[in-house]
Amino acid sequence: MAARTVKLAVIPGDGIGPEVVAEGLKVLEVAASQYDLAFTTSEYELGAKLWHRTGETLPDSVESELAEHEAIFLGAVGDPSVPSGVLERGLLLRLRFDFDHYVNLRPVRLFPGVESPLAGVGADDIDMLVVREGTEGPYAGAGGVLRKGTPHEVATQDSVNTRFGVERVVRFAFAKAAARPRRKLTLVHKDNVLTFAGELWQRVVKEVGAEYPEVSVDYCHVDAASMFFVNQPGRFDVVVTDNLFGDIITDIGAAIAGGIGLAASGNINPDGTFPSMFEPVHGSAPDIAGQGKADPTATVLSAATMLEHLGAVEAARKIENAVAADLKTRGHAVRSTSQIGDDLAARVAEQG
Amino acid sequence: MAARTVKLAVIPGDGIGPEVVAEGLKVLEVAASQYDLAFTTSEYELGAKLWHRTGETLPDSVESELAEHEAIFLGAVGDPSVPSGVLERGLLLRLRFDFDHYVNLRPVRLFPGVESPLAGVGADDIDMLVVREGTEGPYAGAGGVLRKGTPHEVATQDSVNTRFGVERVVRFAFAKAAARPRRKLTLVHKDNVLTFAGELWQRVVKEVGAEYPEVSVDYCHVDAASMFFVNQPGRFDVVVTDNLFGDIITDIGAAIAGGIGLAASGNINPDGTFPSMFEPVHGSAPDIAGQGKADPTATVLSAATMLEHLGAVEAARKIENAVAADLKTRGHAVRSTSQIGDDLAARVAEQG
Ligand SMILES: CC(C)[C@H](C(=O)O)[C@@H](O)C(=O)O
Ligand SMILES: CC(C)[C@H](C(=O)O)[C@@H](O)C(=O)O
Repeated sequence: MAARTVKLAVIPGDGIGPEVVAEGLKVLEVAASQYDLAFTTSEYELGAKLWHRTGETLPDSVESELAEHEAIFLGAVGDPSVPSGVLERGLLLRLRFDFDHYVNLRPVRLFPGVESPLAGVGADDIDMLVVREGTEGPYAGAGGVLRKGTPHEVATQDSVNTRFGVERVVRFAFAKAAARPRRKLTLVHKDNVLTFAGELWQRVVKEVGAEYPEVSVDYCHVDAASMFFVNQPGRFDVVVTDNLFGDIITDIGAAIAGGIGLAASGNINPDGTFPSMFEPVHGSAPDIAGQGKADPTATVLSAATMLEHLGAVEAARKIENAVAADLKTRGHAVRSTSQIGDDLAARVAEQG
Repeated sequence: MAARTVKLAVIPGDGIGPEVVAEGLKVLEVAASQYDLAFTTSEYELGAKLWHRTGETLPDSVESELAEHEAIFLGAVGDPSVPSGVLERGLLLRLRFDFDHYVNLRPVRLFPGVESPLAGVGADDIDMLVVREGTEGPYAGAGGVLRKGTPHEVATQDSVNTRFGVERVVRFAFAKAAARPRRKLTLVHKDNVLTFAGELWQRVVKEVGAEYPEVSVDYCHVDAASMFFVNQPGRFDVVVTDNLFGDIITDIGAAIAGGIGLAASGNINPDGTFPSMFEPVHGSAPDIAGQGKADPTATVLSAATMLEHLGAVEAARKIENAVAADLKTRGHAVRSTSQIGDDLAARVAEQG
């Protein structure tokens, strides 16, 4: 029997979600078993299908059940038949907020052998970790509309930033930066325009930074940072930023690191009060669903991020090594979703 | 005597500002003279030097004088000795707001011969026009701080969006799209999260779009758009977006089109109630100031944007042709700032 058993909630979701999740679990289990770690999984049907059938995005009873797990593993949700925003806010963002996923962790790493859209950029040039705040800022949902539909209509949208919320994510980012070889942290904001929030972020970074003299601290306006992601990506190590800026720059990050098909993410509650959730950054890609064409690599990498969060750091490294080896020799050969999963699982196994 | 004389206010600014402005004016005058257009210029000393001497960023009397001109031509302002935000808000943004520059126009075009950081991308792949709203949204300056410096601090930042403000910039963008060969307009927003503002933008684009059946309309979330700028830039023709999203994506645009050294911009009040202002997107680059090393091309292109705004469309085209021809044959030869200006002026002249 495994020394430790983790209760994992699985949300396969829509489109290619179930296909990639199956491969993610396959690789996860091989890696975990090497460390006397086992997963018991319960599957939850959430997403477009549930919404069409019941009009619900996340029944309270399901949310309570999810809360009883140690972690959540999600494929992808969404379908063109569901209005924009319904599943995003009713399911994905609701989980981030209700489960206090204040760290949205997104590694941006160009694996050797993967083609970046950037000319002359190699694996050594792109290796960063974006720590995006996940529970406040412009995502608070605050705002309103006056005189809707008239020429005098006003719509507001409020970003809410707290000392509590900023400090905890900044602390997380400094700890990550201190543990990486380059020990560099860049705050990305727009403090010359968003003065109230920007000053708070700057002050907190300065204060927490005083506890990490070994970490060098840099600041970039979000517009400049977005440019540097494209023409000087090597400039960044750990990046800490607010919810909306993080949303934007991690998509640029995914693009420069070979595409959203390889981008992993963790929605993390570092305190362990609630289960953290791990998911590929890509969507449900309904156009290729059910055809075994989806690349499960981002989901497999999200499983590694999950293992690391659960303390199984070596198991996580093995998965990353397997992915790195696979990407290096991938070329243009076409493999099915499950074939890629099998190959990755085999590469994990052979590291014994 | 010229058939028409334009009163132009010139703000050379700091760092490389005066150098590039001199070349911009040189080329501008050659192009204008071919069309019986002349400029009378008055120079204003605004920027870091004035601020250090007087503590002022834009004296009211100077603003009143600026208002008496038909257009403003600005080099760059800013210096590391001035705290972040002071000149941005006290001068640049104040002019945008007080002079109601509701269109912030930023062409994103890869000229033949210019190297993009994107692999395998050529001039045909990047030719867009970003129409950024310039007078509202998150730039309103609204927000505040509660319990500053305590663990209970809250900082808010409010985006203010009006039907009036959104509609006029959307109308401008549709008119531009209708006049371009591809006739495509993409709205960039984040309506699945910023629901109040996003719904207003979507609704206005739909309503105004009904008057432009020949323009095809697309929508992209800002995160996806940022990614597509990098891996599918050909997807965009005219882009319309809010003030902050526009700030970010135009810097990505500058990056993919060969760098901020080539990016022009116009802060436009299409109604003509106030003078519009034209400036390169780059900053004052104090590290290379006074050495004749700055590339004046972005400033020269901003002069073209100004001519177009003033109705001298053919003169604008000649400058763009001159720049295109120069960039095509530029290679790695090093020329001084004034040399590049001379060459561009000669290329304009020879189109006679
Ligand atoms: C689906 C959407 C609400 C979400 C976000 O904006 O955070 C997505 O873009 C992401 O980055 O995870
Ligand atoms: C200087 C700054 C206030 C400005 C902005 O944010 O608009 C700049 O980044 C720009 O894009 O013109």
